[in-house]
Amino acid sequence: MHRGIATVSLSGVLADKLDAIADAGFDGIEIFDNDLIASPLSPAEVARRCAELGLTIDLFQPVRDIEGVDPRRFPDVLHRVRRKLEVMNELGATTFLACSNALPTAIDDPDLSAEQLHAVGELAAAHGVTFAYEALAWGRHVNRVGQAWELVQRAGHPAVTLAVDTFHMLARGDDGRALTGVPGERIGFLQVADAPVLEMNVLEWSRHFRCFPGQGMLDVSGVVAAVLDAGYDGPLSLEIFSDVVREADPHVTARDAMRSLLFLEDRLGARLTGPAREKVTVAPPVPARTDAAFVELADPDRADYPALLTGLGFHIAGRHRSKPVVWWRNGGANVVLNEEPAPGPAATALGLVAPDVTAVAERAANLLWPAVDRTRGEGEAGLPGITSPSGLHVFVSAEPGDADHWQNDFVPGDVADTPGWLGLDHVDVTVAADDLNQELSFFRTLFGLRPEDPEEYIQPQGRLRIRALRAEKGDLRVALNVSETGTIPQRRGVTQLAFATADVVDAVRLARSRGVEFLRPPANYYADLDARFALDPELFTVLQSNGLLYDRNDDGGEFLHAYTLPVQGGFQVELLERRGGYTGYGAPNAHVRLAAARAGSAVA
Amino acid sequence: MHRGIATVSLSGVLADKLDAIADAGFDGIEIFDNDLIASPLSPAEVARRCAELGLTIDLFQPVRDIEGVDPRRFPDVLHRVRRKLEVMNELGATTFLACSNALPTAIDDPDLSAEQLHAVGELAAAHGVTFAYEALAWGRHVNRVGQAWELVQRAGHPAVTLAVDTFHMLARGDDGRALTGVPGERIGFLQVADAPVLEMNVLEWSRHFRCFPGQGMLDVSGVVAAVLDAGYDGPLSLEIFSDVVREADPHVTARDAMRSLLFLEDRLGARLTGPAREKVTVAPPVPARTDAAFVELADPDRADYPALLTGLGFHIAGRHRSKPVVWWRNGGANVVLNEEPAPGPAATALGLVAPDVTAVAERAANLLWPAVDRTRGEGEAGLPGITSPSGLHVFVSAEPGDADHWQNDFVPGDVADTPGWLGLDHVDVTVAADDLNQELSFFRTLFGLRPEDPEEYIQPQGRLRIRALRAEKGDLRVALNVSETGTIPQRRGVTQLAFATADVVDAVRLARSRGVEFLRPPANYYADLDARFALDPELFTVLQSNGLLYDRNDDGGEFLHAYTLPVQGGFQVELLERRGGYTGYGAPNAHVRLAAARAGSAVA
Repeated sequence: MHRGIATVSLSGVLADKLDAIADAGFDGIEIFDNDLIASPLSPAEVARRCAELGLTIDLFQPVRDIEGVDPRRFPDVLHRVRRKLEVMNELGATTFLACSNALPTAIDDPDLSAEQLHAVGELAAAHGVTFAYEALAWGRHVNRVGQAWELVQRAGHPAVTLAVDTFHMLARGDDGRALTGVPGERIGFLQVADAPVLEMNVLEWSRHFRCFPGQGMLDVSGVVAAVLDAGYDGPLSLEIFSDVVREADPHVTARDAMRSLLFLEDRLGARLTGPAREKVTVAPPVPARTDAAFVELADPDRADYPALLTGLGFHIAGRHRSKPVVWWRNGGANVVLNEEPAPGPAATALGLVAPDVTAVAERAANLLWPAVDRTRGEGEAGLPGITSPSGLHVFVSAEPGDADHWQNDFVPGDVADTPGWLGLDHVDVTVAADDLNQELSFFRTLFGLRPEDPEEYIQPQGRLRIRALRAEKGDLRVALNVSETGTIPQRRGVTQLAFATADVVDAVRLARSRGVEFLRPPANYYADLDARFALDPELFTVLQSNGLLYDRNDDGGEFLHAYTLPVQGGFQVELLERRGGYTGYGAPNAHVRLAAARAGSAVA
Repeated sequence: MHRGIATVSLSGVLADKLDAIADAGFDGIEIFDNDLIASPLSPAEVARRCAELGLTIDLFQPVRDIEGVDPRRFPDVLHRVRRKLEVMNELGATTFLACSNALPTAIDDPDLSAEQLHAVGELAAAHGVTFAYEALAWGRHVNRVGQAWELVQRAGHPAVTLAVDTFHMLARGDDGRALTGVPGERIGFLQVADAPVLEMNVLEWSRHFRCFPGQGMLDVSGVVAAVLDAGYDGPLSLEIFSDVVREADPHVTARDAMRSLLFLEDRLGARLTGPAREKVTVAPPVPARTDAAFVELADPDRADYPALLTGLGFHIAGRHRSKPVVWWRNGGANVVLNEEPAPGPAATALGLVAPDVTAVAERAANLLWPAVDRTRGEGEAGLPGITSPSGLHVFVSAEPGDADHWQNDFVPGDVADTPGWLGLDHVDVTVAADDLNQELSFFRTLFGLRPEDPEEYIQPQGRLRIRALRAEKGDLRVALNVSETGTIPQRRGVTQLAFATADVVDAVRLARSRGVEFLRPPANYYADLDARFALDPELFTVLQSNGLLYDRNDDGGEFLHAYTLPVQGGFQVELLERRGGYTGYGAPNAHVRLAAARAGSAVA
């Protein structure tokens, strides 16, 4: 595919944007007119710079509100178009785009609009270029792609083509089927953008919340597949704008953008039916299943975690063959303590069982996710690591029994396995607000994790937003947290490790007896539980006397859990027990945990 | 009035919130149940603490979704209510509120709902308290106040009353007339909240964007006047929640909240017709007109501004009678240079002519806006100063000829007045995003300035949001800017001084000839101007050769303007000329100015 991006998708001034776009390996650009207007580079200089950088200028968007115009005002429109076509010829661009009229004064007269589109087409042809007409989702009268196609046909001019924009189509509820019958050669341009599903004014939605394919929830690939299957042969061009990218480094944005196009092509591989399939780059598939394997704790001073792990009932299960790394185990729960030099104690990495290991590593490379730089000792497992945008290391292991299973790197200890916890239930990773889309995209594009609905909680200072993801197949769950607390600095990275147990009452009692400190919910919390659930008195006593939190769903599934006080390295350990098919995370208790965590040891 | 606020309106934990609320002088509180549940204080301890602080507990909101419930599930509701009433008795609260059922499973059967409300009323009465029922704007079946009132009547129980919430009513398009015929003694509670007008999902709007009366755009006082005129005799209680207050210091929020209630009462003075008028505190009115008088520049090193002012054509018009302050003048434009110790050069204060001076000062004190601490020399003008939330000092002068006119403080210089500029056109004040509501509220509540629609521009790094305010009568205009640029630090305070001239071409030429440097728009900008406006060639040449920006409105009004490079102290000077009734600020040129400002002297 010819991969492009609009200059409006990046921050900076035009010259910076061109550099960032070229660095990320794009083939072409769309020039946003305001970028050119504000630039000291003349159109000819821009053209030269693009040629030097190996970028084609695929599109120019210099005019708006050019049809449905009062005929007395239409000469002004033609004047504008003519002047802009001169600029375009200097740029060497060959297609220009204009959207449907969004002014309150737009006239609802398809014949008039078609006639005006024809006149614009005449001017375009006279300047040797093509015009693409797009249905803006908030166009006054024309806001569906079908209406735009109707006008393009009615205009009846070879230089007048249809522009398709995935956001505008999907925002209005259309999908690829809306393009049925549109010949590919009549589609003059294809713009792609994704967005989260939000119930809000569509213009504001578009202006502030667009995102790259794979970061949002729209079926972008469905529309693109329809366009390509129709025979469209032009660029696949990203047009994104959002509050996030406006503030981000343009080089970072350009790389994210390229990654999103590669992911889009990967998805298209499965959806394209015609010859277009040959044109897209397809990466190895997501792993068949993804299970949590271990958590790695950095412990550079060999001091911070052994007591905690012992208190929690872990024992040493093995030592790494070549590195100062110790494997601790509690039943199905595994932690590796890495004593190599590090900035300080922290939970730094997540190990997953996600076969095939080689395919995952290759998929990561194809999607431009960076590999962890790591030496591999002789005879050790191939355990590729990938760094997430927030800096989390994710190591990928083969299944037990395979030479590339992570446990092969360890010399087993003498202690026999004892029954213990069930395993790692989920991990909370706290990221900056502006990094959420990227982190989401990492787990989604690389492992095929499915994002759940966003949740939001009040904390004593600010808000906590949580976006959980879980594997379609396999037990991996990751909860991405964004803690918005104004000027109060927030810990980033892994902020919670949640372990599943078969008997959390027993697990918490044991850990407490060994000196592990847990948050203790206040008495008012238990009074509220009793009001909400009319608890069995015995259960009530067990919960309160052990300081457990509780939730129950409508089907009677139950969730019992407890949190340690924050430990060195800034995370908490959660112990939990799921009964009867409870699949959530105890959301109604979040505010109690957050308030108790603020009060800290004062209430413990 | 008995003034109250909900604990959910503040950040922090319950104990902090009570302190902040009491410090701000409130009479009572609403307890948000989650605050109590997460608190280590028992209900009896909370009651004692409130009594110590002189706060009554006016309301408790412990249950939701209590009507329209499947009769098989209703015993669970009664269980919840009963338990919560026990807590309430411990708290000593006398009214509890529940909203209309918002669950998808809510049953649309007014008879059933009325019967269930009646049953809740029975329980309330048995515990010696009153129940207030509120139509939630996103209630499943009941979401208008008229529906709630209908159900309250149908419930036919003396302990079941109507709760009125200004946000929920106004969000659904109701106003005070929706309460016609509701007797005041049947209104059990009145909650007040304002909000900006946003076209979005009402639940999200409510949850993230509520604000204090005077900060939003809803007609809060209209609803409150209707409630009070109906004979309601209970508390006026603020229930606000927003992303901003969740992150703010609770003491600051509580003070803002109290100020907003005082402002609301002030507005009510003009709207109440019945005996309730006696109950509200009314401040002196806003000034009859508000005109810009001068800008004060801090110049502690006596070095930064004289050359600039001379270059711009100002001359010394006088010296202060008792302080190291020099008055500079260019026609109707006045600047005072203050050489007293200061942290550095900056534009620090704005002088306004806003009679009556004493009334404005008293109004500021009534609304809790802080006075500037300032000594007044013998025979000098009474020139009260008020500090805005962002730290801007605003001095209030009487009209020319009055002893309290600011120029009386200066001994006139020898230089005769010469014709010059027209005056100060507007001032841009840049504030932090979270301070915008407060700064808006300052100019609105104290001087009665009218906010215009928010505008938003892309800048090379991030977004610039502008909210302009102008006097209803008088020439004062202030544009509040919020510059959102991620991690790049932004200059705060006065960032632009715009002066109106009768001939901006001449003014800019003269200033350039005296060494003042101006931003110079690129050639592409002029090509675009010509495309958009088909400019007269002579005008085109004048604009481009002098580096002027240009805009024209649909009525032919024209705007010509130019910006200096940023000067010491971090602001720019704009020179402008308005022709033929142009009232805006040259919005279409903002992106060019912002890009040129970033490029800085490189393009000048």
